[in-house]
Amino acid sequence: MPSPKFKPAPEVLSGDTADIYFVRTIDILRGVNLNPVATMEVFGSRAGILCGIEEVKALLAEVLPEDNREVWALDEGETMEAKEVVLRITAPYQSYGVYETAMAGILAHCSGWATAARECVAVAGKIPLISFGARHVHPSVAGVMDYAAVVGGCTGCSSIAGGRLAGVEASGTMPHALIIIVGDTVKATMLFDKYMPPDVPRVSLVDTFKDEAEESLRVAEALGKRLQSVRLDTPSERGGVTVEMVGEVRARLDLAGFKHVGIFVSGSVTPERITHFIERGAPVDGFGVGSYISGAKPIDFTADLHEIEGKPIAKRGRIPGITPNPRLKRVM
Amino acid sequence: MPSPKFKPAPEVLSGDTADIYFVRTIDILRGVNLNPVATMEVFGSRAGILCGIEEVKALLAEVLPEDNREVWALDEGETMEAKEVVLRITAPYQSYGVYETAMAGILAHCSGWATAARECVAVAGKIPLISFGARHVHPSVAGVMDYAAVVGGCTGCSSIAGGRLAGVEASGTMPHALIIIVGDTVKATMLFDKYMPPDVPRVSLVDTFKDEAEESLRVAEALGKRLQSVRLDTPSERGGVTVEMVGEVRARLDLAGFKHVGIFVSGSVTPERITHFIERGAPVDGFGVGSYISGAKPIDFTADLHEIEGKPIAKRGRIPGITPNPRLKRVM
Amino acid sequence: MPSPKFKPAPEVLSGDTADIYFVRTIDILRGVNLNPVATMEVFGSRAGILCGIEEVKALLAEVLPEDNREVWALDEGETMEAKEVVLRITAPYQSYGVYETAMAGILAHCSGWATAARECVAVAGKIPLISFGARHVHPSVAGVMDYAAVVGGCTGCSSIAGGRLAGVEASGTMPHALIIIVGDTVKATMLFDKYMPPDVPRVSLVDTFKDEAEESLRVAEALGKRLQSVRLDTPSERGGVTVEMVGEVRARLDLAGFKHVGIFVSGSVTPERITHFIERGAPVDGFGVGSYISGAKPIDFTADLHEIEGKPIAKRGRIPGITPNPRLKRVM
Amino acid sequence: MPSPKFKPAPEVLSGDTADIYFVRTIDILRGVNLNPVATMEVFGSRAGILCGIEEVKALLAEVLPEDNREVWALDEGETMEAKEVVLRITAPYQSYGVYETAMAGILAHCSGWATAARECVAVAGKIPLISFGARHVHPSVAGVMDYAAVVGGCTGCSSIAGGRLAGVEASGTMPHALIIIVGDTVKATMLFDKYMPPDVPRVSLVDTFKDEAEESLRVAEALGKRLQSVRLDTPSERGGVTVEMVGEVRARLDLAGFKHVGIFVSGSVTPERITHFIERGAPVDGFGVGSYISGAKPIDFTADLHEIEGKPIAKRGRIPGITPNPRLKRVM
Amino acid sequence: MPSPKFKPAPEVLSGDTADIYFVRTIDILRGVNLNPVATMEVFGSRAGILCGIEEVKALLAEVLPEDNREVWALDEGETMEAKEVVLRITAPYQSYGVYETAMAGILAHCSGWATAARECVAVAGKIPLISFGARHVHPSVAGVMDYAAVVGGCTGCSSIAGGRLAGVEASGTMPHALIIIVGDTVKATMLFDKYMPPDVPRVSLVDTFKDEAEESLRVAEALGKRLQSVRLDTPSERGGVTVEMVGEVRARLDLAGFKHVGIFVSGSVTPERITHFIERGAPVDGFGVGSYISGAKPIDFTADLHEIEGKPIAKRGRIPGITPNPRLKRVM
Amino acid sequence: MPSPKFKPAPEVLSGDTADIYFVRTIDILRGVNLNPVATMEVFGSRAGILCGIEEVKALLAEVLPEDNREVWALDEGETMEAKEVVLRITAPYQSYGVYETAMAGILAHCSGWATAARECVAVAGKIPLISFGARHVHPSVAGVMDYAAVVGGCTGCSSIAGGRLAGVEASGTMPHALIIIVGDTVKATMLFDKYMPPDVPRVSLVDTFKDEAEESLRVAEALGKRLQSVRLDTPSERGGVTVEMVGEVRARLDLAGFKHVGIFVSGSVTPERITHFIERGAPVDGFGVGSYISGAKPIDFTADLHEIEGKPIAKRGRIPGITPNPRLKRVM
Repeated sequence: MPSPKFKPAPEVLSGDTADIYFVRTIDILRGVNLNPVATMEVFGSRAGILCGIEEVKALLAEVLPEDNREVWALDEGETMEAKEVVLRITAPYQSYGVYETAMAGILAHCSGWATAARECVAVAGKIPLISFGARHVHPSVAGVMDYAAVVGGCTGCSSIAGGRLAGVEASGTMPHALIIIVGDTVKATMLFDKYMPPDVPRVSLVDTFKDEAEESLRVAEALGKRLQSVRLDTPSERGGVTVEMVGEVRARLDLAGFKHVGIFVSGSVTPERITHFIERGAPVDGFGVGSYISGAKPIDFTADLHEIEGKPIAKRGRIPGITPNPRLKRVM
Repeated sequence: MPSPKFKPAPEVLSGDTADIYFVRTIDILRGVNLNPVATMEVFGSRAGILCGIEEVKALLAEVLPEDNREVWALDEGETMEAKEVVLRITAPYQSYGVYETAMAGILAHCSGWATAARECVAVAGKIPLISFGARHVHPSVAGVMDYAAVVGGCTGCSSIAGGRLAGVEASGTMPHALIIIVGDTVKATMLFDKYMPPDVPRVSLVDTFKDEAEESLRVAEALGKRLQSVRLDTPSERGGVTVEMVGEVRARLDLAGFKHVGIFVSGSVTPERITHFIERGAPVDGFGVGSYISGAKPIDFTADLHEIEGKPIAKRGRIPGITPNPRLKRVM
Repeated sequence: MPSPKFKPAPEVLSGDTADIYFVRTIDILRGVNLNPVATMEVFGSRAGILCGIEEVKALLAEVLPEDNREVWALDEGETMEAKEVVLRITAPYQSYGVYETAMAGILAHCSGWATAARECVAVAGKIPLISFGARHVHPSVAGVMDYAAVVGGCTGCSSIAGGRLAGVEASGTMPHALIIIVGDTVKATMLFDKYMPPDVPRVSLVDTFKDEAEESLRVAEALGKRLQSVRLDTPSERGGVTVEMVGEVRARLDLAGFKHVGIFVSGSVTPERITHFIERGAPVDGFGVGSYISGAKPIDFTADLHEIEGKPIAKRGRIPGITPNPRLKRVM
Repeated sequence: MPSPKFKPAPEVLSGDTADIYFVRTIDILRGVNLNPVATMEVFGSRAGILCGIEEVKALLAEVLPEDNREVWALDEGETMEAKEVVLRITAPYQSYGVYETAMAGILAHCSGWATAARECVAVAGKIPLISFGARHVHPSVAGVMDYAAVVGGCTGCSSIAGGRLAGVEASGTMPHALIIIVGDTVKATMLFDKYMPPDVPRVSLVDTFKDEAEESLRVAEALGKRLQSVRLDTPSERGGVTVEMVGEVRARLDLAGFKHVGIFVSGSVTPERITHFIERGAPVDGFGVGSYISGAKPIDFTADLHEIEGKPIAKRGRIPGITPNPRLKRVM
Repeated sequence: MPSPKFKPAPEVLSGDTADIYFVRTIDILRGVNLNPVATMEVFGSRAGILCGIEEVKALLAEVLPEDNREVWALDEGETMEAKEVVLRITAPYQSYGVYETAMAGILAHCSGWATAARECVAVAGKIPLISFGARHVHPSVAGVMDYAAVVGGCTGCSSIAGGRLAGVEASGTMPHALIIIVGDTVKATMLFDKYMPPDVPRVSLVDTFKDEAEESLRVAEALGKRLQSVRLDTPSERGGVTVEMVGEVRARLDLAGFKHVGIFVSGSVTPERITHFIERGAPVDGFGVGSYISGAKPIDFTADLHEIEGKPIAKRGRIPGITPNPRLKRVM
Repeated sequence: MPSPKFKPAPEVLSGDTADIYFVRTIDILRGVNLNPVATMEVFGSRAGILCGIEEVKALLAEVLPEDNREVWALDEGETMEAKEVVLRITAPYQSYGVYETAMAGILAHCSGWATAARECVAVAGKIPLISFGARHVHPSVAGVMDYAAVVGGCTGCSSIAGGRLAGVEASGTMPHALIIIVGDTVKATMLFDKYMPPDVPRVSLVDTFKDEAEESLRVAEALGKRLQSVRLDTPSERGGVTVEMVGEVRARLDLAGFKHVGIFVSGSVTPERITHFIERGAPVDGFGVGSYISGAKPIDFTADLHEIEGKPIAKRGRIPGITPNPRLKRVM
């Protein structure tokens, strides 16, 4: 994927989103005129996929003095070990100290999302996954969440903002709302077919009013070759999507001559569920993953000072001096 | 707390953060000229504290036609049951259908944070809690996360943006960075005392270089009556903060005549940890809560259409027609 | 319920179903001309509902000498404690020794079934239960199994033989086979209505071809007031019957004016499932219980000699002499 | 083993043991004159040993029209997978529909018993097992239960009826009753020796009055070379039979010169107990298995229609049309 | 019980049993001529019964200067809380510092034994317990172990040394060795009866050669009224002593007219086993407790200095100064 | 290690520490003039390291008649299986019967300690272990406990008595008491250095007043090359010693040029903790093990007679006659 263009938000640059004690620290250091070159190292609390480092670099590029800075980091999307240093900054402390909150937060949230996506991808093998969780996060991070999901390995995402950041076409099928307003799944599918540009795949949602197997046959008969796939999203009140349902819908579609129609599964999809479907041989052609990715716990990141003016130092519990990590690349 | 002024972001209003299939649905409905008055009901998947409804109402106020709308909702900060309807909108569908993603996402994230905060508050009783988790979320939501923590019952928060939204003064002590740069805890505390306005409480962080009990006595002797409290944040590499440590620091401060100095505890604080400290009688005067709140799993919200032009309808698994909920108040 | 007429089968009377060593024991005792009056006590290995004692008494009535016998027992359907003596026989040993196998087996199997039925009834309260498990036991015991289920508290059963033994009308709805042969649920229900005598309740099975809620409305519209209830028997491949499905079918029937139509639930019904439905308020009007009753583990019974010619005796591990039990009644 | 001669019971042929709704279905189909050729497939809910198919075939041979039937099945005693089709019937539905209850019940009960027997045999290796559970089932199925145990791999059984069905000699030792009536184990054993034909093995039960090791030596001294083995059946009140007891009895018999006397163990024998004895090297020469086999849970069987007049059909949750299974053999 | 006369062993007084670093510490303090009055406090790591304090006091009485000492303590046999101060010594440090090892060790071992004894006594109620564990500890502590068991509540013990310390008559029945040498339980019991003084209770061990119930009757018949009780000590190879065995031996003794003969149970006796016997109503007249008491884990004791020359001090993790405990009594 | 000189204590020889029934048994046997040559076999209840056999042999050498004795045994420190015979005595029973209690007790306690020590050694590999548990056992067994720890593989022990028995120099560092009395860790360490002979290693205890890392640097600077190591013994109130603390102290010592200073860890050391430290790569140079060894549960030993005057015999549950064990060596 092409590298996205991240641009630091004004309220981040102003320190507005920072912990207030960093703002105060800068005030005090200015008061005593203390601005040593300090080396900060950043590491995550558990292993995973590093994400957010591009956005952090975009921030540092704006704030660090060009003639007195050295930044080393891992790449976006690389795996990282628990407590492995993924970012090391050496620069005058006053230039970047206030951004510790923002940098740790970007890495925490993005790496959490990307790592959860990777867990799904790891078990799904060649079956494509679409990030469907925009509805479960605040819209201010919907885009960056979907971006992180793609960094983790998803082939697409549902939000327009996420698609743009990740450099992919946002994708989706049709919502229950359309079918309910139109009043019938077949009618709604035919309207979709009529009004959407030809490059939008025709995927019909088949669990709104009737049994999924029955509805699948009805929409397949209505659209014929133009139907790309059906989406099963059976609610928990009806037992959710089961392995056997997928197999039966496949068999009934095949018996009726619709072998070209794929089956897309959504609803409470997790690595365990994906594994369950695959191990039992359910013929799934794609999964939509929602809150497993979007609701993933952030990976806490910690930033520690390890050198002041070239002298090793550290708080209790940490080793003074630079922590060796040959995987780091100099990025600035 | 005073009601904050939320203002919908341009990328939300433009539909940019929405799932693409809602944008397409509106396109199709416009194509067939279908814009029925539709009633949508929104509920969360588990019980908790409702938060985000003020932001959602600010969004609806901008988009719904003033002469054809009816909105019912619970209040910000109210408790809600699992699957209880917390928001009901009746208006022409084209005016609001595209915002389903944003509305569900706002409620999901904010209610998740507020609910986690309430869990901590419920066990902490009268001991005040400060939200310290800004560093664990993307800066785009750091403010709204801290706001939700205060809605859930925290008495303060660390981010400036959060403090402003929540109508409280952002609070903090001092970071390890200040002490490491200055080189000594006592010196750093004295600089803090010298440069900070008098209304900022003097709270010294006492685990950076020396044993906490020893350091507590040193800073107390240095600042005397001006020292408000010490903060214990012992890293896990040193066994974390223990019940016994709090008791001993208290005893040693008292023996030395510093009964006025409070003890503030941070680091991996959870409801279980708070309970553990309280049940064993540890004399804690305040807790800083980080990722338990900021990393709380969002509460998934679902939006369902239940009436079209006044006629009851619903997808399989749901009951057609208005779901009675006498707790809802008409808000628009 | 009226006491059934049990008649010992010829192969039981002939000793053919006995353990061969009892037949040999009688041969040896005859050889040495030893036929003492012996007292045998029978007890079950765990607590439960005693069942089968009527059939045992019918057997003893045929084989014990009328002038030299004394039999004490608990009643059919009484609760019994683990290891409580439920039957005591005093008579010449040669007259009944060979029937130890049959008597223990009757009590074991019947008490196992009745006890399982009672466990269901205990949690179902006033909701009637029908024994549906005939298909899961050998036809030679299908009737006696259903009889035991009624002894345990079921209000009815599905097998004709069981209904006759238990003195109730066998009951049932319609099988999937009828609907599949006819090709449509509504058509099958209308044929049932046409050909069955008026006293047979019209209960339609609504999960064969379409979604249960949809099919329920279709059959209700076809039969109107004559429809007594619908039966939900959703297969596990479709997630089984859920609490929410029952509630939704109820709501949709009510909305359409069919409040008189009951809802009957079958498929994997156990005490846990019954409790689950009741605790969550599902409006169930009856349950069909299958293999929980029919596949219940028999309660092992043990028969021990405690007196020979009036002299206390017992094998190791047992107390010699009559075991007092004031609950026993003399029955012969 | 030779194939047994099963004969359908009159109450099965009359439909008396059937679920009443099958009888009603035939009535309705006759009413509308509907008797299509239907294909029914039968499968079990879990893996195991198929048993009862011979009895089912005997039933079908009596009821299906010779000129319009096709029956495929697995063999008696074959292993079957969960949900594997083990029987497929194609014939006019009215000729066999009413026997669905009986066929499923025969397979359920017999396969449950045979499967449990196989589990014991699988861990016992070359040590012979005798089915001792007739006393724990209703006498109407005592014979067929013992037959199923032999199908599952037991080398013998205790009931006369079971022995006849399975084509083996029923076997047994002596009951506690004989010893208690005679008053002494040695005396009882000598009477057994005197009165039984020479081909009946002399096996003495040695736990009735004295310690097993002591009694074993006493009976061995009394019968000498004619004693085939001793049976240990220690009650749980005395701690049951232990591995060490078997070893000690073996050692004491050997020390006294009775190496030819075998040791047979009974009482609460399960696969776990058999494994326990074998892994610890207990010199057991045979086990008697009771309620582990006789009380085995039946394996539920399901019968589904998959074709009507050659046209694929199926209820929801099943795949329409013939289910391929190359292991099936045509049997009719 | 009367207070025993403990006398410090020479190797304790010489410092030979001490940790060498205490000996060195005294050497150093003498070198620098430092002998401050120091206050040491001693507490156990878990709750229990304090035992050994008499022996510790005997040691302190020998070594502390009479004119410069103050000792506070709980009483022998009192309950103590976890971490409760049970002993406080104020005296010149050189006089007692080297005995920290011995004092802690005496309290640790003795309190561990007494606490385990108390756990047994607490559940045994009025049934007397005899300490039988001398064979499971080194003979150098056999006596003091039995003494601690009596402090904990046992009514007697088996070792002569223990009986003398505890001021009770050592008690016992007869060992298996006597019976094996004599060759028969009845003969051995009669010899015991012949040679023992009349005040030694006649208790026969009845599990050596024959079944316990049979042997009990044999010895009762041999000794008649002179038999006080039988002891059941069935080895695990025979299933151990069971509740049912005790009940049966009782019943058979009663039936034969030996109601005066008690039943004493030994072998793997623990609080759980005692509770098991009592809850199920086994008529036990006494228990012999072995390794549950003798193998009890010592309760670790810690000794901390809290004042030096009247000035509060403590190491990290402890509170400086005297720890208030109103339960302490001044003992020196 | 050289074989220690054990000498039976007078109270053991007098029978004073014996179970009283053995004393009585000898009285009876003398009364009837019965003194057969008897073979006794002794085995432990679980696998482990045999210890105490040297002390037992010293006892037997004093009491068995030289012209009529045969003793076979395993060696001190050998591994033994559960129930393996480790000692076999053939001699006139009256000469040794009374010592069954003492012999079993010596083996029980010593083998328990040695086995626990071996468990620690097995996971510690080349890292030396010192037995530190004298303070947790009665001083009468402090020496023999430390001796058993060395038999189990410890390289040293803390008690003087134990060192002498085991033939090693007792070792130790310095107690908290010395530091508290002197008032400062550095001062105490310098006094130690001044007054101790040069061959005593300088090991400073660094957790008394200050943070361990800070204190380690202070004492290293004070003693320079003469400092052999530091001991970390952090109390649980400060989180105990952690893997990370060891690593950090190592790193800070190295950074400051003190690579020669070792790190010794004590406090709650168990095999699990040792493994934990080793698996995570903590650079530990030695462990002090306390109550894991000293509080180890004794291994119960049983003594059985197997031959009387050459004739095989045994109580119920045991096999009569000599139990073959080719590992035994004749020792007397």
